[in-house]
Amino acid sequence: SESKADILNVADYDVLPDGGDCTPALRKALEKCRESGATTLLFPEGRYDFHPDLAEEIYLYISNNDEGLKRVVFPLVGFENLKIDGQGSEFVFHGFISPFLVEDSSNITLTNFSVDFDRPFHSEAIIIGWDEDGMEVEIPQQFPYEVRNGLLTFTSGEKETGPLTTVSKGTVYGSGHMLEFDTEKRETAYMARDYYFKTTASYPVKKLDGRKVLLRIPNLVGTPGNTLVFGPNHRKHPGFVLTRSSDITFESVTIHHAGGMGILGQLTHNISINNCKVTPSNGRMLSTTADATHFVNCTGYIKLTNNLFENQKDDATNIHGIYAQVTRKTAPNQILIQLKHRQQHGFDLLRPGTEVEFVTGKSLISYGRGIVKEFNRINKEYMQVTLEEEAPAELVPGDAIATIRDYPEVTIANNIIRNNRARGMLLNCRGKTVVENNTFHTPGAAILFEGDAFFWFEQGGVTDCVIRNNIFENCLFGVWGKAIIDVKAGIHERKEESRYNRNIRIEDNTFRVFDDTPLLNVYCVDGLTWKNNTVEKTDAYSPTPRKFDAFNVTYSDNVSIDTKNPY
Amino acid sequence: SESKADILNVADYDVLPDGGDCTPALRKALEKCRESGATTLLFPEGRYDFHPDLAEEIYLYISNNDEGLKRVVFPLVGFENLKIDGQGSEFVFHGFISPFLVEDSSNITLTNFSVDFDRPFHSEAIIIGWDEDGMEVEIPQQFPYEVRNGLLTFTSGEKETGPLTTVSKGTVYGSGHMLEFDTEKRETAYMARDYYFKTTASYPVKKLDGRKVLLRIPNLVGTPGNTLVFGPNHRKHPGFVLTRSSDITFESVTIHHAGGMGILGQLTHNISINNCKVTPSNGRMLSTTADATHFVNCTGYIKLTNNLFENQKDDATNIHGIYAQVTRKTAPNQILIQLKHRQQHGFDLLRPGTEVEFVTGKSLISYGRGIVKEFNRINKEYMQVTLEEEAPAELVPGDAIATIRDYPEVTIANNIIRNNRARGMLLNCRGKTVVENNTFHTPGAAILFEGDAFFWFEQGGVTDCVIRNNIFENCLFGVWGKAIIDVKAGIHERKEESRYNRNIRIEDNTFRVFDDTPLLNVYCVDGLTWKNNTVEKTDAYSPTPRKFDAFNVTYSDNVSIDTKNPY
Ligand SMILES: [Ca+2]
Repeated sequence: SESKADILNVADYDVLPDGGDCTPALRKALEKCRESGATTLLFPEGRYDFHPDLAEEIYLYISNNDEGLKRVVFPLVGFENLKIDGQGSEFVFHGFISPFLVEDSSNITLTNFSVDFDRPFHSEAIIIGWDEDGMEVEIPQQFPYEVRNGLLTFTSGEKETGPLTTVSKGTVYGSGHMLEFDTEKRETAYMARDYYFKTTASYPVKKLDGRKVLLRIPNLVGTPGNTLVFGPNHRKHPGFVLTRSSDITFESVTIHHAGGMGILGQLTHNISINNCKVTPSNGRMLSTTADATHFVNCTGYIKLTNNLFENQKDDATNIHGIYAQVTRKTAPNQILIQLKHRQQHGFDLLRPGTEVEFVTGKSLISYGRGIVKEFNRINKEYMQVTLEEEAPAELVPGDAIATIRDYPEVTIANNIIRNNRARGMLLNCRGKTVVENNTFHTPGAAILFEGDAFFWFEQGGVTDCVIRNNIFENCLFGVWGKAIIDVKAGIHERKEESRYNRNIRIEDNTFRVFDDTPLLNVYCVDGLTWKNNTVEKTDAYSPTPRKFDAFNVTYSDNVSIDTKNPY
Repeated sequence: SESKADILNVADYDVLPDGGDCTPALRKALEKCRESGATTLLFPEGRYDFHPDLAEEIYLYISNNDEGLKRVVFPLVGFENLKIDGQGSEFVFHGFISPFLVEDSSNITLTNFSVDFDRPFHSEAIIIGWDEDGMEVEIPQQFPYEVRNGLLTFTSGEKETGPLTTVSKGTVYGSGHMLEFDTEKRETAYMARDYYFKTTASYPVKKLDGRKVLLRIPNLVGTPGNTLVFGPNHRKHPGFVLTRSSDITFESVTIHHAGGMGILGQLTHNISINNCKVTPSNGRMLSTTADATHFVNCTGYIKLTNNLFENQKDDATNIHGIYAQVTRKTAPNQILIQLKHRQQHGFDLLRPGTEVEFVTGKSLISYGRGIVKEFNRINKEYMQVTLEEEAPAELVPGDAIATIRDYPEVTIANNIIRNNRARGMLLNCRGKTVVENNTFHTPGAAILFEGDAFFWFEQGGVTDCVIRNNIFENCLFGVWGKAIIDVKAGIHERKEESRYNRNIRIEDNTFRVFDDTPLLNVYCVDGLTWKNNTVEKTDAYSPTPRKFDAFNVTYSDNVSIDTKNPY
């Protein structure tokens, strides 16, 4: 039982739900918390507003999100044994600001609050019509914008003062992606495809009446009345970043929005997310602007239980490691390596003593191991690594290394995953992985296994994975995946011998399908059992011509499927 | 005389002019230089190429340029007594890379080399024609670009592999500014105006034949055959950054290009730039993409002698201090202050013991002083400052502070300044300032005095300034300034009493003018003498209707002009 001294009530430090900026007072409350060793930071129920002006600034490398100098409202750096209890409070963030960082901390519990942004990082518009030259849309009041010089730019809505100059910025909510959502069903539109734009902030338009504009972009298509979601051109402000920490618990936390992923855990030991929600607020179509959760080079356990993950602009989770590419051998026991994916730059991959595996770049064959003796970080991208012993003789530039570690045990149970862009779960973890009693309604694959060492550089390859008692509810009504369960791998050479995912059991699940939806794709797998699963037909969507069979198995060994093609 | 041990020849460290990337070998040579205490780093004559891949990475705050994490090729941090002698070498930089940083160093000489970029940060196109909806241009081979989804994006020319994804970047040479140059005269086009675009990287276009595009931007105008210069949307990579250093000498250095200013000195004591050039290479219209040189909160002396500054995208120099805005008084001896201009963020303005002046925000009256006792940097933008004594009673939010310091003595002599965008010199330094024997051919004011505490936040106000024996050659053929010598100040209230610039003598200069060009504008000045200057008429350009008289004097005291309106 907690004594009064263990509890620090933020109201005692002028953190008040009064509409003012709580950031500076919270900063003092957190300092006090650290000094006093309080174990609970308690928020009286209310709406707390946080602005970036007086926030602490930290340069963060956040895997699969964007690095940079961030204003962080809750910088939980070097804390031990702390619970932040919102008692049902709403935390509302304003502008370009990062809600939570948990770094070099242990035994942290986050509970009973919601996270939202006043002005989300994405924007939305209603489709009015289109032809081959462009699309007419109307932009709701909630998403401020301006048109200048033929360019549409989403803004904070604050008025720019004076003419444009070399230092004009205002606050631009830059966009680089569009995707159509079904306004009625509140999910990605049937078979909608992504529109990506190379590094831009603005779109070419013609201003029309009121809040209507003509997007002067050829070949956009969509259904009038549907919602065009403009994804941000960055992932600068994920909701929660966990790095080099341990025993982190989320309990009854709601994430309405984040400028990037909802929760990103990296190099962290034991993470539990229970009874949480990722869900949009204020009638918005989108919740987080990237994955709901995502875990990189974590250890111990990862538990996702009893959660709702909906309407995020990417997968519900992805659990993987990182491959660094070998640039060249610089001595018999020395290699130069590069973090190739720009959202992996700066990742704290190696320590002296770290065990690494050597992997071929295009065939993903793990052909040797080594121990890091020392390394020299040249910059966020390159490292010179000295090994305890000589590197394998067969090592060539373009091969990759990744760490051998205490791969986490993964439990994904009793969650609802729906209406987001892309896939449900990406399972790329070598620890025991159990996925049970979940309901999936995803436009892409509900469950994807991948991993490659030449494009995304994500280390995967399950070794013990059970998928059971789940309901797959009309999945694959979009374009992201070949089958409801899609077991892939980035293997482009030596397919006959390379086996990446192993020992997958798919049992007692129910697949509700609206057409001859491919159920299972299996590529370069050793050991997979499909047993006692039920397939039911629905009329949820129009059927679509499918290129693949219900079961598609290639370059695999020891695959057992207990049923015939059900279609 | 130098002993052999004092000279480190880079060739001995495999820094070779062989077309390969010299960055990593140079890094080792510089380490060796530091260890050995060598006083000369010698380059055998040749072309040395530098790529960013293996460069050292440093987060830099660079006043009037863009902060950020930079790859720095010559990181001269903590060096004493070093000469870098290129012996006539060319240093060619590739990609997003910062050539030189001189930080916490003293007695550094840079000599006998040129700096250029393989692919400049700006781009150019030839104007073919225009109407009210847009302008047709043709883009020379030297400036790679692509058109995708109706957007023109300048690129590095490297082929993007695969489809666009969330991590697609390639190398984008983003632009946010356009300005027409006269192709024949190689200067900004007669009376051309800037086109600014809010935070963008790309422009709306229609692709035409070959390397032609139609810029779908209303109201662009220009003369067919002239050159439209696309300025970058950043100032990330100035050529030379000098910070907290002393006794820095440039001798016979040529800067062909930089992604920002050529030389930016901040908080540095004694800078000499002699016999140097800022001039474009390879037939390009632009040299540096911002000012040739620029000095902020420097001390000691600044000498610019015998230089050529041409075709830079902004002024030849600007010498000033920084005002921080007072957000509020937080205790009788404590204030919260903000660096308002985003390109001043992170500036290392104060130390315990620093003397500061208090200034009214809109009238620029310096009404009190104080000494900094301690300060707490909240982030790059805000600081909490505790003073030795109470702040002045009249202090209100919106006032500003700046430092009182050993303002530098400025000598600007025997330079040629021409064909750049905007002005020649911005003289905003309280130390003795002598400008003599220079030739100016600038589209804006040749010499501007300004300073304000509410927009640019640049501390100025000369106290002893002589401008003599200069030739002003057909200046003001563009739009940047009210007179050839324009003595302004950001004073919007209390004009009757506020006097900002003092004791200016303009003597024995020759003004060649192509029309009734205003010679002198004087606003809120105490003490100015115009004596023995010659005005000659030319027919260099068509005359233009001028709004101002030859001499325009308002809200000033002790102004003496020895001649009548010459027109
Ligand atoms: Ca408050």
